[in-house]
Parts: sequence; structure tokens; C-alpha cells
Amino acid sequence: MPALRILPVIALAVTGLTPAIADTPKATQRSAAEIISAAPDSAWRTPDPDNLLYALIGNGVVIIELAPEFAPAHVANIRALARGHFWDGTSVYRSQDNFVVQFGDADADDPAKAKPLGEAKDHLPAEFHRDAKGLAFDRLPDVDGWAPEAGFSSGFPVARDRKANRAWLTHCYGAVGAGRNNEPDSSTGAELYVVIGQAPRQLDDNITVVGRVLSGMELLSATRRGPAPMGFYEDPAERTPIRALRLASEAPESARIPLQVLRTDTQAFRDLVESRRNRVDDFYKRPAGHIDLCNVAIPTRTPPADK
Amino acid sequence: MPALRILPVIALAVTGLTPAIADTPKATQRSAAEIISAAPDSAWRTPDPDNLLYALIGNGVVIIELAPEFAPAHVANIRALARGHFWDGTSVYRSQDNFVVQFGDADADDPAKAKPLGEAKDHLPAEFHRDAKGLAFDRLPDVDGWAPEAGFSSGFPVARDRKANRAWLTHCYGAVGAGRNNEPDSSTGAELYVVIGQAPRQLDDNITVVGRVLSGMELLSATRRGPAPMGFYEDPAERTPIRALRLASEAPESARIPLQVLRTDTQAFRDLVESRRNRVDDFYKRPAGHIDLCNVAIPTRTPPADK
Repeated sequence: MPALRILPVIALAVTGLTPAIADTPKATQRSAAEIISAAPDSAWRTPDPDNLLYALIGNGVVIIELAPEFAPAHVANIRALARGHFWDGTSVYRSQDNFVVQFGDADADDPAKAKPLGEAKDHLPAEFHRDAKGLAFDRLPDVDGWAPEAGFSSGFPVARDRKANRAWLTHCYGAVGAGRNNEPDSSTGAELYVVIGQAPRQLDDNITVVGRVLSGMELLSATRRGPAPMGFYEDPAERTPIRALRLASEAPESARIPLQVLRTDTQAFRDLVESRRNRVDDFYKRPAGHIDLCNVAIPTRTPPADK
Repeated sequence: MPALRILPVIALAVTGLTPAIADTPKATQRSAAEIISAAPDSAWRTPDPDNLLYALIGNGVVIIELAPEFAPAHVANIRALARGHFWDGTSVYRSQDNFVVQFGDADADDPAKAKPLGEAKDHLPAEFHRDAKGLAFDRLPDVDGWAPEAGFSSGFPVARDRKANRAWLTHCYGAVGAGRNNEPDSSTGAELYVVIGQAPRQLDDNITVVGRVLSGMELLSATRRGPAPMGFYEDPAERTPIRALRLASEAPESARIPLQVLRTDTQAFRDLVESRRNRVDDFYKRPAGHIDLCNVAIPTRTPPADK
């Protein structure tokens, strides 16, 4: 395997890390891997299984965390759709380069063929933003061109406008949104898209974002791009089948996938962000002194067996 | 094909557009497609074939434009490597999600197996940045967190620091850089990476960027991610073969791929950027009032037959 002339790893998966030792150098000099490895168990959270979707795509599982604090009506509807097995046998029917993949019922616009939504509602309010007041928010000090403030809330990358009393989930890589028509309230959560390219932040506060992918992005991002306009596949055989999509809470506890997410309101996370903002290692010659909200990867881990 | 509940297209390919009419509304209300369609022929440039690489990957062609104004030594070496057919039979041997693909000689670090560089040099100076003085630069008015100024130069997305008299090519989606080891001057241009995710701008001015992909990104970005750390493929059979890689100038003129790029120093381009910064259409409810350097797609077209 080529070790020469390669770019440094940026993945934050925690595998085979050396345990932190007592005399680690000061925080700004620790590597991201060391910071993650040294994070106490209290810095990790186990997402509520009622907010987790398992999508069986190909031979893998995409895990999505829903954000009921931002899109309660959509999240409730998505739970109803998952309980009704709405997505089983549907597909990823669109893959547009440097933009989004989209999945759900490819025949949603054909009344004769559209899959019924079951117990789910066919009309929801737009949930583009929520009140900023009352929302825990850990602000990034870095300038954000798209919003007055950018930061994290409940583990999601979020923008905030205190003057307008608005906060919203941002369209970072892996964001999951509810496709809609031109009417703001035309999304049901049945047709979902996932950002697979440069963050299309122009969509922020213009569409309802419902959550983000925690794991399995590569099952979506590496799908062959659709040849038709907007990345659709004309040939249904080219779509990627979704074998099943379930709420984790529907699965018996023993069948759930152990997964924890680093809390974004912890010192470990702040140290991690700083280690990314100003990289001190043998590769980087000029620390950036800045980080963009959407360049912050939020680490996940398989929890130790005894947690 | 689902027309309902879909996100608007952002691709800028110019196909089947209605010709602009005399009474188009004012610039800020024209759509991106209308602006591109109405751009005069003088707003389009045909890249110098000595700066164009054709990489035959799978059944498609990736077209890369080199930037000799920013990395003259690397571009000269890449031309020598292409003329020596260095990349023929090599591969895309790395695909790391939300970061880069990398191609070249997968055995570059094994002296026993490494492919000789032929007429190309095995040592080059680092070309992380160039003088800002003397460089034509069209500044974006939008704030950029990573650099004092961001804009375009010679059709490339560029950052500038006038105080330090530095300008550099940025790591936007599609940027092509020269992989290196820890030493700043350890790149030769033989091992090249291409950005396939959220712009890793922390690499800016830390590595030599040599150009950008003009066409065929989907042949790189949709490659199955490598399972090994950093996205490498342990199994050589999983690598994507590069059948051939040629300078366009080596091909007879009749065999060249007709391709033009919208000039970034034109009113048409400025109008286009504004149409993206503040979208006025039936879908968007709140114009962003901002655009990030790496969210600006630079249109290409197949020139009309008589140009």
C-alpha cells in the first residue's frame, strides 16, 4: 500500500488508537485521534433509538439520526412511515454529482402508482427553522458567511440568527432533508435527500432538514450518478434498492447496532475542533486558523463492550 | 420520473436551453440557465490544449485543466509524465469518502516495483502559493473564513493575501493536487488527488494544487470507497484502471474534445454568481445573500459547431 506521497487521513473513526497517556502534551498539540481516544465515556452519547433509522441498502446499513427538536412534525411522520415499512422495496432513485442523492418512492408523482403513506400524514407544516430561544447552542467562534452564527445543537450542525429568533439545521455533508415541491409545506418526509457534495447552504432555511447520516455515507455517496437531468435514473434497474428501513426502536435491543456519537457540548469536542482548526503535525506547514461548520466531522464510535 | 418533491437542479450544463430573448428581465431576475445561454461567445474560452489532460477511466474521460500560472514546475513535470505515458495502466488506487480520490502508481513507494518517471523530474520545488502581485484576480465580495480574499483567476477558484503577497489555488470540489509526503518539496505530480467532498480548505497553501477537473467528475467521485484506512484498496482488483492519460495537445486536433469554459472575468460570470447568491425563482423562499467560493460552479459547454 502506498505510504509515500499521500494525503493525511481525515477520517475520525476510532479504531486501534493508542490509549491516551498521563503525560500527553497540551490540548492544542494533541492529535484529533488522541483527543477522541482520551474523551471520557461521559463525552459520548447513545442516540435515542426512536430517533435512529436503519436503512438496508445493498449489503450495508445507513444509519440516520433524526432531529425532533428541529422538525417534530416531519420526524413523527417519518417514524410512522418507517413503522408502516413504507420504504421497504423503494430505492435511491437519484444521484446528482456534488449535490444530493434522493430516496423513497420513485413513482411518488404518479397517482396510479404512488405508494400509499399508510398511517402517515400527507400534509405537514414547513419546518425550515425553529425558535432560537430555548435552544442549547454551542457557537463556533469562526465566521460563517451564510448565517450570523454557526455551531452545534443536540449534536447537529446548526445556524442561528438571534435577531430573527431563528435556528436551523444546516446542509452539511450527510444532512438529510425532506424533498418538497415549490410550496413550502409540500414535504411529507417520504422522499428524503442526503447531501453528498459541497454543502449547498443556499438550501438552509428553505427546506425542512430532518436529521443527518451518522454512518454508511459511502453507500449513498458512491452511487453511480444518474444520467438524466438532476441525477435521476431513467432505467429503474439502475436505482439502488432499499431492502428495508426501520426505526432502531422497532428492533429488539440485541439487534441494534452499537453506536455512540461524541457530544458536541463537551470539552473533548471543543479540543477536537481546535485540533482541526490549527493542525499541529508533521504534514501541515501552515495551520488554517479557521474551520468551517461543515468541515467539522462529528466522531462516532462503537462503544466499549462494557458501556 | 418523479417531478414531485424534488430539489431544484443545480447543474450548469448547457443543454436545450431556450435562447435568450430581447426583453429578458433585469439581470438579478434571470435564471442561471438564462444567463449562461445569453453569454456572448467572447465570454467563453477554449483552454490551451497544452494545459488539458484527458484521462481515460472506465468508459469515460476525465478532463483536467492545469494551472501553469500557479504551479509551473509541477505542470511542466505533469506534461512530461503524460508525454511519457506514465499513467497508462496505472489506477485510481484510493477513494476516501468526503475527501479525495487519488491516482497514479499504486506501487510508488516500493523501489522494486515503482514505475520510472521517464523524462520527468523526481524532485520539484513546493508550489503552494505564488506572488499575488501581477496576478489578475476577480474578487468575490463574500466573506471567506479561510483567507483574506477569495475569487477567481484564470478560471480557477483562488484565495489571496495581499499583505503577504500570496495567492493560491483553493481546494474546492474537483481541485487536483499533487500528493506529497511530509516534506513540502516531496511531490512530483505523478501521484495526483482530486477533491470529492466538502472543500478541505485546510490543505490550502499546504500542498501544491495543479489544476481542476472540468468534466467527468462523476467518474471519480462515484468510485466505491476503499475499505482500508484513508480509502485505499487492499485488493488491486478493486482499483479503477486508468487506460490512458494524454495531453490534449498530443492528440490530433480532430480527436480533441470540444469544450469551452465560461470566463470568470466577464459580466456574464458575475451575473451568474449573483443569480446563485440571491436565487429568485419559485423554489427558494429566502435568498441566501451569500455564496461560498466553492459553491460557485464554473460552467462549461460544447461550443456551437461554427465556433
